[in-house]
Amino acid sequence: MAEQQKKMVEAITAMDEDFAKWYTDVIKKAELTDYSSVKGCMVIRPYGYAIWENIQQDLDRRFKKTGHENVYMPMFIPESLLQKEKDHVAGFAPEVAWVTQGGSETLTERLCVRPTSETLFCEHYAKIINSYRDLPKLYNQWCSVVRWEKTTRPFLRSSEFLWQEGHTMHETAEEAREETLRMLKVYEDFYRETLAIPAVTGRKTEKEKFAGAMETYTIEPMMHNGVALQGGTSHYFGDGFARSFDITFTGRDNTLQYPHQTSWGVSTRMIGALIMVHGDDNGLVLPPKVAPIQVAIIPIAQHKEGVLEKAREIADRLSETFRVKLDASDQSAGWKFSEYEMKGVPLRLEIGPKDIEKNQCVLVRRDNREKLFVSLHELEAEIARALALVHDGLYERALANLQAKTYVARTYDEFLDIAANRPGFIKAMWCGDSACEDKIKDETGGVKSRCIPFVEEHLSDVCVCCGKPAKHQVYWGKQY
Amino acid sequence: MAEQQKKMVEAITAMDEDFAKWYTDVIKKAELTDYSSVKGCMVIRPYGYAIWENIQQDLDRRFKKTGHENVYMPMFIPESLLQKEKDHVAGFAPEVAWVTQGGSETLTERLCVRPTSETLFCEHYAKIINSYRDLPKLYNQWCSVVRWEKTTRPFLRSSEFLWQEGHTMHETAEEAREETLRMLKVYEDFYRETLAIPAVTGRKTEKEKFAGAMETYTIEPMMHNGVALQGGTSHYFGDGFARSFDITFTGRDNTLQYPHQTSWGVSTRMIGALIMVHGDDNGLVLPPKVAPIQVAIIPIAQHKEGVLEKAREIADRLSETFRVKLDASDQSAGWKFSEYEMKGVPLRLEIGPKDIEKNQCVLVRRDNREKLFVSLHELEAEIARALALVHDGLYERALANLQAKTYVARTYDEFLDIAANRPGFIKAMWCGDSACEDKIKDETGGVKSRCIPFVEEHLSDVCVCCGKPAKHQVYWGKQY
Repeated sequence: MAEQQKKMVEAITAMDEDFAKWYTDVIKKAELTDYSSVKGCMVIRPYGYAIWENIQQDLDRRFKKTGHENVYMPMFIPESLLQKEKDHVAGFAPEVAWVTQGGSETLTERLCVRPTSETLFCEHYAKIINSYRDLPKLYNQWCSVVRWEKTTRPFLRSSEFLWQEGHTMHETAEEAREETLRMLKVYEDFYRETLAIPAVTGRKTEKEKFAGAMETYTIEPMMHNGVALQGGTSHYFGDGFARSFDITFTGRDNTLQYPHQTSWGVSTRMIGALIMVHGDDNGLVLPPKVAPIQVAIIPIAQHKEGVLEKAREIADRLSETFRVKLDASDQSAGWKFSEYEMKGVPLRLEIGPKDIEKNQCVLVRRDNREKLFVSLHELEAEIARALALVHDGLYERALANLQAKTYVARTYDEFLDIAANRPGFIKAMWCGDSACEDKIKDETGGVKSRCIPFVEEHLSDVCVCCGKPAKHQVYWGKQY
Repeated sequence: MAEQQKKMVEAITAMDEDFAKWYTDVIKKAELTDYSSVKGCMVIRPYGYAIWENIQQDLDRRFKKTGHENVYMPMFIPESLLQKEKDHVAGFAPEVAWVTQGGSETLTERLCVRPTSETLFCEHYAKIINSYRDLPKLYNQWCSVVRWEKTTRPFLRSSEFLWQEGHTMHETAEEAREETLRMLKVYEDFYRETLAIPAVTGRKTEKEKFAGAMETYTIEPMMHNGVALQGGTSHYFGDGFARSFDITFTGRDNTLQYPHQTSWGVSTRMIGALIMVHGDDNGLVLPPKVAPIQVAIIPIAQHKEGVLEKAREIADRLSETFRVKLDASDQSAGWKFSEYEMKGVPLRLEIGPKDIEKNQCVLVRRDNREKLFVSLHELEAEIARALALVHDGLYERALANLQAKTYVARTYDEFLDIAANRPGFIKAMWCGDSACEDKIKDETGGVKSRCIPFVEEHLSDVCVCCGKPAKHQVYWGKQY
């Protein structure tokens, strides 16, 4: 109660006033995370963690359905193992945490706390892959990883975060490429079907790809304020790591060959995306499939005879089908309305004496506050329908935002004007030279290539930056 | 196949010949773990991890049913935070891994990789507990922890392992004590109902309790060879940590009070217990509730017309209710029998041309090789019944082992004789002085007090070791 009363006093900052402040206000008031005394590390509180559990369950089902198995690798990587693949170590060494002491002894070789686990998977694969019959190996791991970040924000960029990392090995390059794109598609489906988030997908440029990868594919949702979030990546490695780690197999033609590799991952960043794509000035707005509470039941005039009993009866009945919370506390109904709006609960169910008389209740959608009067006879069906409407409503709204904030630039002046004045994605042609990416980033305060989409539009013949012949259409934008 | 053929050649060591070697052979051949280049850290392979996932799901349901919520705390603990509770730091500091560098900078304060998270939970609780209305807080975390072990063995003792750690705060000492015992009971039920493992439970002596706890309760199953495994612990802390971390709340009487705390945990050690309690000379024997594959379907004479089709039809049908694997590979039926026995699959289903004619199949129990001829009409019901029989059979056999290897010692000579010649638990009286525990441990090569049971037997009036008046009946035994 003490905590709750404090919450009544502080209002959250409006999105338009200060988006960054709005974001941290929502996280605090919805009780998603807490800060800890460890630099850049967050405590994920029960309500935040419950969102992650729902995300995990859904994704894990998708991974298993596509033939993947879960494993667990050590959290430490000996320095010599990390150094086996040159590009990889160059990319990660500057941002890892090093263990140098175990108990009272100084280690002869320091160990890094895994920033990602390609090297560990490769070491294991070298031992268990001998024949083409052992392929493919389709492993995934759920764990936490550490990247020593200088500036951190809950969910978006933290020194430690939770994620999954898939690491697979294949007989041919073609199969590995198929896997890379299959898993990007799994992410895309998951974003759309479960998180209600639309996104742009495509290939990263050379400059932006993962350390050690031959190709990196990405899913890039747009936040409400027009800024991109790299929402998940899928990498094709060729046989580079396999050569560095001496992973070989006897092929169908009895020759010794190197397998072809992929990796792919998404993280607790997705919770950041949920907040910034769907949230509003009243707080969090959660898509029904990951909401820890799908229906908040609020008794109206609960002191009146029969109201609480009826509310409990409904809660018991609904909890067999939905994630339900009955709030029978002595707070006012108005306080409860705000509380569950803040927490982003997709549906509020109000039940009072008059409703009981008519054998009905009121459903209120979080996304648009639409009220539905629903007969108690058809409650389950009506709630299922309303939850589907909330999901679709959220998706449509996010898609409209993404479309409205996607611009086309044909000249560099146009590009600079949009970058300065209209936050969002910019579609523009590019020559393929990373020098233009550097120039754009410098002259726009951070606009980067997001990706080369799978279906490119022909917007002009020349690079928007240097005027040389264009090779690709690129999505550009600032990012978290 | 290359891997599989190698397996055919090596047989596993017999249990009676060399139990330790048998244990590592089973782990290797059932593909539960692999060694890594990181000292004392293991790779948990898909089959091993699938057991852990089943354990997790079952336990998590039990935790949530008793009102607990999951959270995630940082994996690092600043040295100053670890030092806040004196007994706790003294217990853990000698065996932690220290991070001293982040990226290229040397940290001003070193961070330990969590060996357990009391200190982090306390830091968080200090911020969110203000009033008696905020209590109880019933949090749990699934994560990995690190303890820098000198000698390690897969699952039993490794530098990193997976576990859950519950940390709860209560208004009164009585409520915290109730929670401590409630969670021990949850573990006991889980061991019996899910792992099919009987155990002795009770309170640890002062000498054996957890660093910083007032009381530690333990569950101690007995391995097949008579050696104990500390299978899970539940601790009552009183308000010691609360005082060290300045966690206070306003009580019902409006005074400032310290809350009362518990913690409790079980780990991947339980997989070690599964192996050593139920396994036999043919390999792993898994209780049906955690077995990744509950029924292995082996087609007999699979080249004959209709056999594979029927096997596939049965597999599809059964996979709606059970975890099923059809092995349609070109290995011989005999090879497959050994393979799934090695992997501990509770039931084998054989289906061949003659069975198809009679519309039946053969079920073979892993625990006792009993054969059942079953009509395909009643297959689901018969499999469910057979799985329940396997579970009960495993429990009964383990209980018989525990009872047969539990001895009573009334004199010190008896005690030494049993300790030297009959591995198992020894019930004997104790004066309450840790000097006797030290003496017994020294003179028996490692027999320790397992616990003081909840219902003590009166075996004699005096301590089995020193002859002074007895205070308690204790279970003694060697441990992993």
